[in-house]
This record gives sequence, structure tokens and C-alpha cells, in this order.
Amino acid sequence: MAARTRRGSAKAEPDGRRLRGDKTRALVLKRALEIASVEGLEGLTIGALAKDVGISKGNIGILFGTKESLQLAILDESVQVFVKRIVARSRAISSPLKQLLSLCDGWFEYVDRRIFPGGCFLYATSSEYRAKPGHVQDRVKVHRRAWSELLTTTAKNAQKIGEIREGTDIDQLVFECVAYQAAANTASLLGDKPMFRRARQSTRIVIDAASNL
Amino acid sequence: MAARTRRGSAKAEPDGRRLRGDKTRALVLKRALEIASVEGLEGLTIGALAKDVGISKGNIGILFGTKESLQLAILDESVQVFVKRIVARSRAISSPLKQLLSLCDGWFEYVDRRIFPGGCFLYATSSEYRAKPGHVQDRVKVHRRAWSELLTTTAKNAQKIGEIREGTDIDQLVFECVAYQAAANTASLLGDKPMFRRARQSTRIVIDAASNL
Repeated sequence: MAARTRRGSAKAEPDGRRLRGDKTRALVLKRALEIASVEGLEGLTIGALAKDVGISKGNIGILFGTKESLQLAILDESVQVFVKRIVARSRAISSPLKQLLSLCDGWFEYVDRRIFPGGCFLYATSSEYRAKPGHVQDRVKVHRRAWSELLTTTAKNAQKIGEIREGTDIDQLVFECVAYQAAANTASLLGDKPMFRRARQSTRIVIDAASNL
Repeated sequence: MAARTRRGSAKAEPDGRRLRGDKTRALVLKRALEIASVEGLEGLTIGALAKDVGISKGNIGILFGTKESLQLAILDESVQVFVKRIVARSRAISSPLKQLLSLCDGWFEYVDRRIFPGGCFLYATSSEYRAKPGHVQDRVKVHRRAWSELLTTTAKNAQKIGEIREGTDIDQLVFECVAYQAAANTASLLGDKPMFRRARQSTRIVIDAASNL
């Protein structure tokens, strides 16, 4: 919140200064996300981040506010990256069933290509904050729900137009996809390639089994 | 290793002193496991642990050696607790299929009852060390493999005596059970009871579907 207030007050500043601040913020956020992907949001310290990017701890504070608002900004940014890289392209597809396949397969690609060094950031943060109630955990729940709802809505749209069979239990289908992702994320990072492959294939199999196409 | 050497040399000491050391070690380990269950093995500091249990940092060093050997001791202890509470009772069952059901259902009970405040310790540590190669990650892999192998061997024994249908793909069956556990652990801790219930039911359904009984 501190960061937002300060950035709000920057309206009176020359445009160049504002833009440099935004650019610096984006660069620091990118690097913070990479570090937190391996070390966790708790493991990332403002001091280590400041040293890594070569700006003062005070300036990190000006850009992001408290450690918690930095953690929330990192989590949100990870979701934005996933949306831009994976979700966006599914929107260009007209068939909801193919959208669903694109979203699920895109998720495996996102982990397999190590867009973040620690794999799926949302799964990592879900585990890190599973026993730590607070704002970060609340935000984790919001993003988890959004992902499940995106898969559910897409699958229901496919069912409405007959691409997925009428009797299919969509909640169960989405649960299975999400469970395979949970298993695949850790398996991939721990080098268990057979388990990662099996999770990817199993996802394809459960969607194909429900498909009318 | 330091701890082992020191404890080894304690052979010459009076029995009472040795026993007090073992008892202290067990008490400290129990508390360390509770803290690490929430804070993670990296989040647990020797200083905080020493303060919490009211003994000096130096004595923690004498009992456990380095921070890494303490981390390995905590991880191994969590597995021992799971074996004593959940795995042991399945050994008393003669039907391998019922053993498999007991192991899987026992796992859900272990998480649901919060035997550790942060849920399944092995899943938590798998996620914490997914991007951190080293001795802890290696030990995580050993324990993960042991759990998968226990489920696989039990299911194969059930198949051999006709309790599980001949054509069943046991590796796929075990993968599905393990994936549902991965999903259920985080869901339970984040308060997503419907997802936890669904994971438990789904496990029962896939085993029942493979059963001949």
C-alpha cells in the first residue's frame, strides 16, 4: 500500500522520472520472482534482493512498500506471466474443448520449460503458505480458485455445445486435471520424468475419455 | 556425523547420562519437527529451536551436528512417525488389497488429524526442496520412492492372488493415488474440504474399480 501511495503522488513528477520508476520496478519484480521461485517468498529477503539488483533497500521499500506487499506483487506477477504465456493463446481458440486441452497442455509446457526455475509458482506458494494464514495465503486461494474456475467454465462450455459428453462430471474431471498438475510439478523439479510424463498423458486421457469429438 | 561421533564416544559414559542425552534428543527432535512442519526445514533456525526448547545452541549442535544433519534427522523422524502410526497397522492385515486400502486411507487420516500441524511432512519437504539439490533433496527422493514402492508392491501382491484384476495397470493405479494425495495435502491445509473429500473418495473409487472382491 505504501508503494501505491508513493507512486500515486508521482503524478506530479516529470513523465520520464515516473517511467524510469515503473521500468525499475518491473526489472526488480522480474528478478525477485526468479529468486522467490527457488527460495520461496519467505526465503527472499529485501537485503539479498537489493544486493542482487544493485539498488538500496530503501529504494526497494519505495517501489514495493512492506515485505508482504512485495510478496503479493511477486505472486500476482507470476500469475500474469502464466496468463500471458499460456492462458492468452487459448483465448484465440474457438472450440472450448480445444481451449481446455490448450490450457492443460500449456500448464505442463510452462513447468517443463522452466519459465520459472522452481516450476509452477502458484503450486510452490500454495505449499509454502499452506500452514501460514494471512494475506499471502488469502491471495493464493484467490488464484487457485481462478484457475479451477477457468478450467471448469471452459469444460462446461464444451459440454453445452456437445464437445464433452452430457453425463460427464465436470467437477471430477477438473479435480483430476488439477491433481495431476500438483503431482507433476514436484515430480518435474525432482527429476522424476516418468511421473511427469504420466501426469501429462493421464490429463490427455481423462479429457479424451469425456470428449465427443 | 558430528553428533554420531559424539554419541558413539558416549559409550564410556555412565548409562544414566547416555539415556538423558537420548531422551533430550528425542524431545528436541519432536519439537523441531512441529516447528519445521509449519516453517519448513529451511525456516527452522538452530537459534529459535534452542530458545523454544530451553537448551543452548551448543547443545543442539552436540545432539544433532550441523543444521543439515538436523534437517535430515527431522525428515527421517517424520517418516518414522508415519510408519508407526499408519503403515504399521496395515502389516497386521492379511489381504494385500485391504492393506492397500488401509495405507491410502491411513494417509488421508494422517493429514486430516494433523499429526503434524503442516500436514504430510514428506509432501511439504518435497515442495520446499524441489529446486534445491543436495542431501535433503536426495533423502526426500529416497522416502518418496519408498512410499510409491510400498503401494506398488502391495497392489502387485493383491494382483498376484486375484484381489486386483489381471489387466490392471498397477503403475497407473499407484500414480493416481499419489496424485490425489499431492492435491489433498495442500487442499486440506488451505481449508478446501470439498477437494480433500473428493481426493479421498477418488482414491477409494480407483482402487474399488480395480478390485475383484
